[in-house]
Amino acid sequence: MILGRFRYGKRVLQGIVEDNEVMVTSGKLKGRRIALERLRVLTPSRPTKIVCVGLNYKDHAAELGMPLPSEPVLFLKPPSAALAQGEAIVYPSMTKRVDYEAELGVVISRRCRNVPAKEVERFILGYTCFNDVTARDLQQKDGQWTRAKSFDTFAPFGPYVVTPDEVDAAQLEVKLYLNRRLKQRGSTKNMIFPVEELISFISRIMTLERGDVIATGTPPGVGPMKPGDEVVVEIPQVGRLVNRVMEAK
Amino acid sequence: MILGRFRYGKRVLQGIVEDNEVMVTSGKLKGRRIALERLRVLTPSRPTKIVCVGLNYKDHAAELGMPLPSEPVLFLKPPSAALAQGEAIVYPSMTKRVDYEAELGVVISRRCRNVPAKEVERFILGYTCFNDVTARDLQQKDGQWTRAKSFDTFAPFGPYVVTPDEVDAAQLEVKLYLNRRLKQRGSTKNMIFPVEELISFISRIMTLERGDVIATGTPPGVGPMKPGDEVVVEIPQVGRLVNRVMEAK
Repeated sequence: MILGRFRYGKRVLQGIVEDNEVMVTSGKLKGRRIALERLRVLTPSRPTKIVCVGLNYKDHAAELGMPLPSEPVLFLKPPSAALAQGEAIVYPSMTKRVDYEAELGVVISRRCRNVPAKEVERFILGYTCFNDVTARDLQQKDGQWTRAKSFDTFAPFGPYVVTPDEVDAAQLEVKLYLNRRLKQRGSTKNMIFPVEELISFISRIMTLERGDVIATGTPPGVGPMKPGDEVVVEIPQVGRLVNRVMEAK
Repeated sequence: MILGRFRYGKRVLQGIVEDNEVMVTSGKLKGRRIALERLRVLTPSRPTKIVCVGLNYKDHAAELGMPLPSEPVLFLKPPSAALAQGEAIVYPSMTKRVDYEAELGVVISRRCRNVPAKEVERFILGYTCFNDVTARDLQQKDGQWTRAKSFDTFAPFGPYVVTPDEVDAAQLEVKLYLNRRLKQRGSTKNMIFPVEELISFISRIMTLERGDVIATGTPPGVGPMKPGDEVVVEIPQVGRLVNRVMEAK
């Protein structure tokens, strides 16, 4: 199943995407079918937190000449950074270099903590495309990554969530196109810590809530964007997340 | 005014604390007065994010022999780390050293972004006590501070929020007692970036929401706690935040 959140006039709906229609699964319009073109796509969940993983691809670590980490390195993006399909990534005036980072995102289905890796799948709503937008100059300046990763619009994800029965998260191709040119191409089989291990690890630190998003790290090939660019994260079977970059007003 | 959130049977109430009573300001019991002893204190707000500032006291920087930062260094704690007055800080099995850090907390009154320093006060609901609990060994190991700062129970704040008309945030004494012994004592007049500058800076990065908490950095004297300890953050005119440390089950 492909799950989404949408704006329809003044309403916010949840639904299942089937071809060019959405079967509404929440609220007063439950059961109704609405054409996708009449809906605006929202982020597929409303996370209470967005937990990101630093270096998590063997080939990306090799590219940077860095040793493989012994445990996942985590950082957080605030919910205020969330951005939906089609919305603009705003280039802040505080930075001179904003990079894309294509990642597989995981959306949590219900509250959990201390979950053994073997049981993680029970708490996964599904998978989505995630762009870990990063002000690279500020990341280097601060040492701590929080400012560089936390600007409003710096956490695009979506367009939808694909349920775990549809995909093998350990065998997904993660690609990034900048202005239609392929810039990143990796496979989740090169992850240092696979999805179940990551989520188990994170759940031993913090209680995860329904809708929380885990961004699982980026493959090789990150690079800069500029205002006017179109950036696409594509994960076959999961989706295609399209955003444009815009100058701050 | 002193503002709080409370559990009363199955209800959650907001109210104004006056002597030993709470004047309820929300819901069906609005206007009613209830004795404090009949209420359980909850965190005074429900933050969508908790934004913390690294090194922000001149005397603490001197103590560590570190240069003064040119801009605030930020990190985030997830909302899942929030802890109320009287609740237990749980010592995770993943760490061997958990430190206290007494801080002045600021609670945001309504959504804002790009706020000039001069206008920040309009968006401050009030001040509270904050304990930036930190797994020091993991902070050092990871480089990134997120894991070390994000465990469940690692963001105690409260007990209440005191409105800005009651205090001068630039002249507050911040103290920490471990088992009734004074361990930290500083004054907010030694902040490198005062409250208005911090919040203005943060609001240029991320939209702040009602209830969000800003932790403004710790004065000298941080140190470790162990299970069984009682830790108190005391800021005269703002409050006294009391928590115990407990072994993980």
